Amino acid sequence: MKKETVYEKSLELHEKNKGKIEVISKVAVTSKEELSLAYSPGVAEPCRRIAENKADVYKYTSKGNMVAVISDGSAVLGLGNIGAEAALPVMEGKAILFKEFAGVNAFPICLDTQDTEEIIRTCKILAPSFGGINLEDISAPRCIEIETRLKEELDIPVFHDDQHGTAIVVTAGILNSYKLLKKDITKAKVVVCGAGAAGSSIIKMIKKLDVADILAIDIDGIIARDDENREYNFLTTELSEITNKENLKGGLKEAIKGADIFIGVSAPGLLKPEMVKEMNKDSVIFAMANPTPEIMPEEALAAGAKIVGTGRSDYPNQINNVLAFPGLFKGALESGAKKITEEMKFATSQAIANLITDEELSTEYVIPSPFDPRVAETVAKAISDLVKK
Amino acid sequence: MKKETVYEKSLELHEKNKGKIEVISKVAVTSKEELSLAYSPGVAEPCRRIAENKADVYKYTSKGNMVAVISDGSAVLGLGNIGAEAALPVMEGKAILFKEFAGVNAFPICLDTQDTEEIIRTCKILAPSFGGINLEDISAPRCIEIETRLKEELDIPVFHDDQHGTAIVVTAGILNSYKLLKKDITKAKVVVCGAGAAGSSIIKMIKKLDVADILAIDIDGIIARDDENREYNFLTTELSEITNKENLKGGLKEAIKGADIFIGVSAPGLLKPEMVKEMNKDSVIFAMANPTPEIMPEEALAAGAKIVGTGRSDYPNQINNVLAFPGLFKGALESGAKKITEEMKFATSQAIANLITDEELSTEYVIPSPFDPRVAETVAKAISDLVKK
Repeated sequence: MKKETVYEKSLELHEKNKGKIEVISKVAVTSKEELSLAYSPGVAEPCRRIAENKADVYKYTSKGNMVAVISDGSAVLGLGNIGAEAALPVMEGKAILFKEFAGVNAFPICLDTQDTEEIIRTCKILAPSFGGINLEDISAPRCIEIETRLKEELDIPVFHDDQHGTAIVVTAGILNSYKLLKKDITKAKVVVCGAGAAGSSIIKMIKKLDVADILAIDIDGIIARDDENREYNFLTTELSEITNKENLKGGLKEAIKGADIFIGVSAPGLLKPEMVKEMNKDSVIFAMANPTPEIMPEEALAAGAKIVGTGRSDYPNQINNVLAFPGLFKGALESGAKKITEEMKFATSQAIANLITDEELSTEYVIPSPFDPRVAETVAKAISDLVKK
Repeated sequence: MKKETVYEKSLELHEKNKGKIEVISKVAVTSKEELSLAYSPGVAEPCRRIAENKADVYKYTSKGNMVAVISDGSAVLGLGNIGAEAALPVMEGKAILFKEFAGVNAFPICLDTQDTEEIIRTCKILAPSFGGINLEDISAPRCIEIETRLKEELDIPVFHDDQHGTAIVVTAGILNSYKLLKKDITKAKVVVCGAGAAGSSIIKMIKKLDVADILAIDIDGIIARDDENREYNFLTTELSEITNKENLKGGLKEAIKGADIFIGVSAPGLLKPEMVKEMNKDSVIFAMANPTPEIMPEEALAAGAKIVGTGRSDYPNQINNVLAFPGLFKGALESGAKKITEEMKFATSQAIANLITDEELSTEYVIPSPFDPRVAETVAKAISDLVKK
């Protein structure tokens, strides 16, 4: 479908249905008796039980299978800071993906504030009704502070999908790529282009694979220590400490020389074919700028890359967050996890990667299809097994 | 059903279903194409449209048919201040009544704060996602301040059902009672026992019927002006100014003499048969303390009352809020009303009253059944007609 057609048809779909979500009842209230059980006076009994033992809220209400999809509308898709109301179609979309891909109920909440402390406080005030919080489309680096604080201060799973969703799926892609190529990941030099919400989470996950080195690149070039030309914030300071062993300075052109893996969460067309030629043999490229990647797959392959993935559904190896968050939350909710841990994120990457058998594995199939019906169940089981261990 | 059985069966129902609500998708996402329309990249288009014109959020999202059912758990049923988690079964129940009785989507939100300013601020922060706010089970007199402020500061309908729901339905009952009895409402002396959230709203609605006088009674007796034995708050001060023309002092015993109508939103058994005997001929009694009314219907009738209503489903003339709020919100949302006005509340009372024809009207049928399938549609139409006028 042409881009214009997609937009036009999407608009029609949204207008015809007046949005995408509906809240329905799981019980009937068509008679006096049914009403007296679902509502007053019978409902007083579950209320009393929960008042006596707060944990019973998971037993008698929908909380245990209800995720809040929360955004402040400050960094929506590629559209930027479009505000709460304009972010709602995305959050409704996210909510239905939870339900359709993993049977998890989710409700979209767009906040009429962009103040970090107020967002944190609001999430905490809302927490009694929800079993988990999925933060979405909140601009970096605020999103990192918000997620970190909420993880510390709440006892329900909190997850910022823009940060970790892509990181989990691209890690699965790297695991399968190196398995297929029979290469040693501990010798890999990785370039991560884009060091915002997604980039920083990718760097932290890749770091745990014990790769040889990572070079992080943002708008000011390679993130290095003691760079006089850079104004550091808490995030670039942290990244400068965990990447770039040789404290290399420069740009993508300098970083890419001798690299084994390129991961892009930046902007269209940044990776040139001549740069790919400077990479090591059998290079792996995940170019996830949307809708146009850092390099088109055909160009990357022609320039010598061995495996290429993008965010696009019309090319092989699509990096799609929907592979991760529905099953991850399903597993976390079912197992009563209080947090989404690093181990749970890595278990999700492994579960996604392992869906592809050694026989099936090929350069065009290192990432399963988002419509593979096994994904959410498999991820949820991996998470449940991990939490219960 | 015995009370114990109702509680036991309600508990089973809640546990078996793990709560009562579910969030479902109105659109399919089972293929690449469907995903690209409901979510990225297509969803960018409704986002862009809403960013350009905020009012389009009603066109492309579920906001226009989505009510937030918000409580702080401070005054839940007759259980008191049981907190956010324990209030959730009631709010889920309320949400499904919206859906089942009027097709209005509603989502339960229990707040982990009981600070008035913080509740107001949170409701405002949540407003972008909702077409209306139904406040529920918030203690008086805070609930009045919260509702008043939100009505002023938000451009979506805000309604505190505990205040106005009962008032609307009991007003319908009075309209029909006086029609049946062919009595002149402007000569009626009304006693309202209980002057909290519901009582104060009842007083203000009844006042608009131009009754002869109203006496409001709270725990300190008849609300009067310049009563040295009373500590006034903003609510009792206001009520003292609009009731009790003769500035009578005393208790229910003194108030009830020569009264035509008794309305109770107080406590079980407060109205004694000997008090009913002191009322004028053909008296009308709405005794709505739950689950045991201020006087049982058989006692009231034996003592000379002509028409009796209660909150109970096992007696005639049940005053049930579900007659009002689903249709009222449906009409408000469909007509794009920005506020719930006094006129809309009164139109709801009239629409409910008028469902009973002159031929059907009897002392045991001044209030329609909550399961009368015409109620929500009829109320919604009355509201729509009024708003569009």
